[in-house]
Amino acid sequence: MAGPVRSELDHLRVVLVEARNPLNIGAAARAMSNFGVRRLRVVNPYAVAFRQARSAVGATGLLADAEEYKTVAEAVADCSLVVGTTAVGHRDLQHPLRRLDAGARLIRKRLAMGGAVALLFGSERFGLSNQDLSHCHWLMTIPTRSEHSSMNLGQAVALCLYEVVRLGKPRQTRNKDLKRPARAGEIERLTVMLLGILQTSGYIKPREADATEMKVRRLIRRMLLESRDAQLWLGMLRQVTWKLGVADRGSTRRRE
Amino acid sequence: MAGPVRSELDHLRVVLVEARNPLNIGAAARAMSNFGVRRLRVVNPYAVAFRQARSAVGATGLLADAEEYKTVAEAVADCSLVVGTTAVGHRDLQHPLRRLDAGARLIRKRLAMGGAVALLFGSERFGLSNQDLSHCHWLMTIPTRSEHSSMNLGQAVALCLYEVVRLGKPRQTRNKDLKRPARAGEIERLTVMLLGILQTSGYIKPREADATEMKVRRLIRRMLLESRDAQLWLGMLRQVTWKLGVADRGSTRRRE
Repeated sequence: MAGPVRSELDHLRVVLVEARNPLNIGAAARAMSNFGVRRLRVVNPYAVAFRQARSAVGATGLLADAEEYKTVAEAVADCSLVVGTTAVGHRDLQHPLRRLDAGARLIRKRLAMGGAVALLFGSERFGLSNQDLSHCHWLMTIPTRSEHSSMNLGQAVALCLYEVVRLGKPRQTRNKDLKRPARAGEIERLTVMLLGILQTSGYIKPREADATEMKVRRLIRRMLLESRDAQLWLGMLRQVTWKLGVADRGSTRRRE
Repeated sequence: MAGPVRSELDHLRVVLVEARNPLNIGAAARAMSNFGVRRLRVVNPYAVAFRQARSAVGATGLLADAEEYKTVAEAVADCSLVVGTTAVGHRDLQHPLRRLDAGARLIRKRLAMGGAVALLFGSERFGLSNQDLSHCHWLMTIPTRSEHSSMNLGQAVALCLYEVVRLGKPRQTRNKDLKRPARAGEIERLTVMLLGILQTSGYIKPREADATEMKVRRLIRRMLLESRDAQLWLGMLRQVTWKLGVADRGSTRRRE
């Protein structure tokens, strides 16, 4: 294969959020196997569906090895790039939106740099929620007809992996000196800390708490921080947190 | 859409040969609807499967309008280009074989010339027979891993149509004003405010004050903030400044 090499594809995680249909989970796994992507993560799947998909005849090993998570935050914690997929449609998107081919190029580039990338797919009925999207750096959409834009989950996974893997294309040369992007776990710690500060300082008004939180989450992810910068921010915010006497938010839903 | 125009896509026929699984027939129809391809033809389908697919909830109109044929010869009779799809594998192919992206280009070209094109997909278990292939001008294959090259029928149809249709233009989703980069003046106000906060909270140690300030200045400039994001940060920091009772730094050299 002349696309991303195998070790690079090992840094790609396909994350299915609240998938309901065992056939779709199985179809996603099959497409992964077709394109040589092995790391499947499921967030809060319908338990019966996941069990059925796992025990289905012909289920690939990667389905047996799938990692199960309770929250999106945990599922993407070790990734430096988190990309959500969406059919767009009616939603008023606040994130940068890239078409599949352009987005796939960026994902390939990140993989070539050695970064871990999470590719998120929402449930068959509702797609990704705003809460799910708040963990994403940007969104990717498959160009479909506007009159019928929503794709079947298994087909969407196949299309995205096809474009990302693109067997046969020359791949990016690897530059080890490139700065390591922050992992989602670092970004999330930073987000939680900043939200605590904003809460204590009165920036977050109770009535607009959810909207403000979403705004802040997107803001931080738009910054595309390098890891060293995330560390710098964490150090600064930790000091401000201490000075303001911010209560520990470790137990709130945001830490989940 | 900047790919083939609608009247051109009306010259594309998706031909499913001896499909066995109603779910796959339905998935193929859904992908066709996603990409604006309307002409579905089925050759000698398993009758029960075809009936089930047609009566499935959410079956698109194109499934109801699907044309049924007894033989491949009849199903492709009005087409000037007949392309078979194959996972290659063990078979000793006698036909020219093109990779999906290259093949799709040729199909687009033929459609643009006004020619009718048939795209053939074989049964889930056996693919296209040698007899079926004998009606094809050439074959097209989706580049998959050689260890697991055979794709699910619905996913294969989705991938082929995606490449053939290649809907053009990305949809505009973001107001151009939102992307205006922050001006240096905004960045500087933000820097000064953050430095004030760091001073008051004790993050900046007197002995390292200059070095820390430089570090923070570079950090903020590396963020390459958009103007709206700089405004957001200013709003948040203003509130923290107030809460911490940061002294006015308007007269320090940092404002100069």
